[in-house]
Amino acid sequence: MRLATRAKGPPDGQLILVSADGSRALPATGIAATLQYALEEWDGVEADLRRLDARLAAGEGEVLNATDLLAPLPRAWQWLDGSAFPTHGELMQQAFGLPAIETDRPLMYQGMSHRFLSGHEDVPLPDEADGIDFEGEFGVITDFVPMGTCAADALKHVRLVILINDWSLRAIAPVEMKTGFGWVQAKPACSVAPFAVTPDALGDAWADGRIHLPLAVTLNGAWFGHPHGREMEVGFHDLIAHAARTRDLVAGTIIGSGTISNADHATVGSACISERRAIETIAQGKPATAFMRFGDRVRIHAPANGGSPFGVIDQRVVSGRSA
Amino acid sequence: MRLATRAKGPPDGQLILVSADGSRALPATGIAATLQYALEEWDGVEADLRRLDARLAAGEGEVLNATDLLAPLPRAWQWLDGSAFPTHGELMQQAFGLPAIETDRPLMYQGMSHRFLSGHEDVPLPDEADGIDFEGEFGVITDFVPMGTCAADALKHVRLVILINDWSLRAIAPVEMKTGFGWVQAKPACSVAPFAVTPDALGDAWADGRIHLPLAVTLNGAWFGHPHGREMEVGFHDLIAHAARTRDLVAGTIIGSGTISNADHATVGSACISERRAIETIAQGKPATAFMRFGDRVRIHAPANGGSPFGVIDQRVVSGRSA
Repeated sequence: MRLATRAKGPPDGQLILVSADGSRALPATGIAATLQYALEEWDGVEADLRRLDARLAAGEGEVLNATDLLAPLPRAWQWLDGSAFPTHGELMQQAFGLPAIETDRPLMYQGMSHRFLSGHEDVPLPDEADGIDFEGEFGVITDFVPMGTCAADALKHVRLVILINDWSLRAIAPVEMKTGFGWVQAKPACSVAPFAVTPDALGDAWADGRIHLPLAVTLNGAWFGHPHGREMEVGFHDLIAHAARTRDLVAGTIIGSGTISNADHATVGSACISERRAIETIAQGKPATAFMRFGDRVRIHAPANGGSPFGVIDQRVVSGRSA
Repeated sequence: MRLATRAKGPPDGQLILVSADGSRALPATGIAATLQYALEEWDGVEADLRRLDARLAAGEGEVLNATDLLAPLPRAWQWLDGSAFPTHGELMQQAFGLPAIETDRPLMYQGMSHRFLSGHEDVPLPDEADGIDFEGEFGVITDFVPMGTCAADALKHVRLVILINDWSLRAIAPVEMKTGFGWVQAKPACSVAPFAVTPDALGDAWADGRIHLPLAVTLNGAWFGHPHGREMEVGFHDLIAHAARTRDLVAGTIIGSGTISNADHATVGSACISERRAIETIAQGKPATAFMRFGDRVRIHAPANGGSPFGVIDQRVVSGRSA
């Protein structure tokens, strides 16, 4: 199943189901008004949602208007982002002479969750001098996860998989990181691709708590990278168990993988500018690629079997205040 | 005005107004069903709420049953906690040989906000070995704050002042802090005293974006500290402006002061065990005070003119899972 949220009734929109080819949709009217409700009541609504999905598979549905779509969860009660691709951290440490992070646990911070941007709207940011960067990553959305859930039991709480652009402001990030308090200013609202996909619909691409798909990232129309999701050092089940060690996770919690990064970065490129700048610094002593300017456009999706299961993030950064 | 939330209709409860002496209440029926709604529509509902408050002042209202009260916001879209009392950081660094935090900005992290405990319910935590500690602090709740709001304009967005116990797990906190990612496991759900107070109702105790009141903290019935809120290095207006630098703040954002701590700690004591242990370590080479055990009870309030404007946090930690 592929779930999406149509702008209708702010701020949480209307839950719809989308056909496998992304062309048609049926609203989940009478089953679940919003995706948040569906996640809270998943066991009670899943069978009805799957019946609706069967009608889509049989050819029913209206033509999907992609410009109507919001982020699948336009706001969420909790967003916990990991950093599970070790190559990314290693490159950043090597390039900038940072000490290795001393921990034997998954890395994770709590981020802003009261607003997630759609994959197509303009992204208003205050200042180019902040070092505007994207981060392409996968995420999962859980149902309610009780405190103390172990990794072995965690995967059954993964209800949906999503594709995220975790906007990052690189001039601020290291300053905030040095305090030990994590990021506030360096991490404004994320963007999310339009379709939230059930793990079963990903087939073999969902295995070991990882998404075995590459990204396809372009910046202003030029190839930027196609790193692959399989190289997570820990899987989403480990990230969920880590998050739930001392708290219940509310239904609708979003857990992120951190920016996707591969050991073979010389071939596959990167999913964020900062990492490319680190590679350039290691090779040439200084970065060559600039951060984003207002008007620049980034496109991120995860191609699979000729399709795009999560849909596409394709948006500009602009100067200004958000609505 | 003093606002509170009565358990009625989960999870956000019912908004009530409470008399100045805390003895009587009137529900805000027909004005705002929940505190979150009131914060989103403050300009539209404030006059009606003040008319209701005048009826309370005239003697109307039912007897308040304190055991019915939830946290004023039982859940919030955003909780950003500062660390604005410099004595606390200095003591911790001196006792544990930590480097000083290199920053010229307010310290702030984003914490768990999908659940705030009431001031009287048991606090379920998984393990005494995690180093269970309280942190008494003040907080403010804002209405919508546009991105880029400066400190000079920020105070008008403070709609309510609250008293918080920011539960902290001290065996985990330094491990997470070293990663630079902030705290996830070390910061489970906070507790909040029952009454959220409008700044005007605090009189002279609300000045310079600070709360000029002491806490009164007891642990298992014994005096623990009475540090004063006036020693914030930056005020709540500075914390709000810091938080809003690259994001809008959603209505109902909670901003915390960080644990209250005074230069004269030898006389006034502390608002958390960890700081007392730091003082003991500096004086005697090792800590003498233990962290909390299951069954231990902490009581925190802010006495003012013989009353207690925020009501009282008085609760036990217990072994187990949250509901």
